[in-house]
Amino acid sequence: MKIRIDIMLKEGVLDPQGKAIGHALGSLGFKGVEEVRVGKTIIMTTQETDPAKATEDAKAMAEKILANLVIEDFKVTIL
Amino acid sequence: MKIRIDIMLKEGVLDPQGKAIGHALGSLGFKGVEEVRVGKTIIMTTQETDPAKATEDAKAMAEKILANLVIEDFKVTIL
Repeated sequence: MKIRIDIMLKEGVLDPQGKAIGHALGSLGFKGVEEVRVGKTIIMTTQETDPAKATEDAKAMAEKILANLVIEDFKVTIL
Repeated sequence: MKIRIDIMLKEGVLDPQGKAIGHALGSLGFKGVEEVRVGKTIIMTTQETDPAKATEDAKAMAEKILANLVIEDFKVTIL
């Protein structure tokens, strides 16, 4: 089963990397860019065949290791 | 307009970060994880209101600055 975990900084948490990209785009001639936020995508294949169990496992992985829940939110999608 | 750019390593390009995550998950008791690959997600808001133009702009940004096309693929989605 192929699973995708999207991890983004929570709303309101400063994103210096996004800010830097926004500035770079502006100074390279891309006008009209307002806010830029950067996140991580983790795509994994597992031997699990039950989508409900796979989603549950992926949530546990995100909560325990992959995401920092103090500043990040995550979303699990079965592909 | 809100735009999402997903940047992933191309198929076949080694992903040491993904490998490390896979090993970490395995040693922490998550069994059955096969391949793990890590990518970037960039979410931006722009003043552009035409979806076609916004997509075109985002593609240009990805090609010129955000992605390394030698080793990475990207996908633009209008949110």
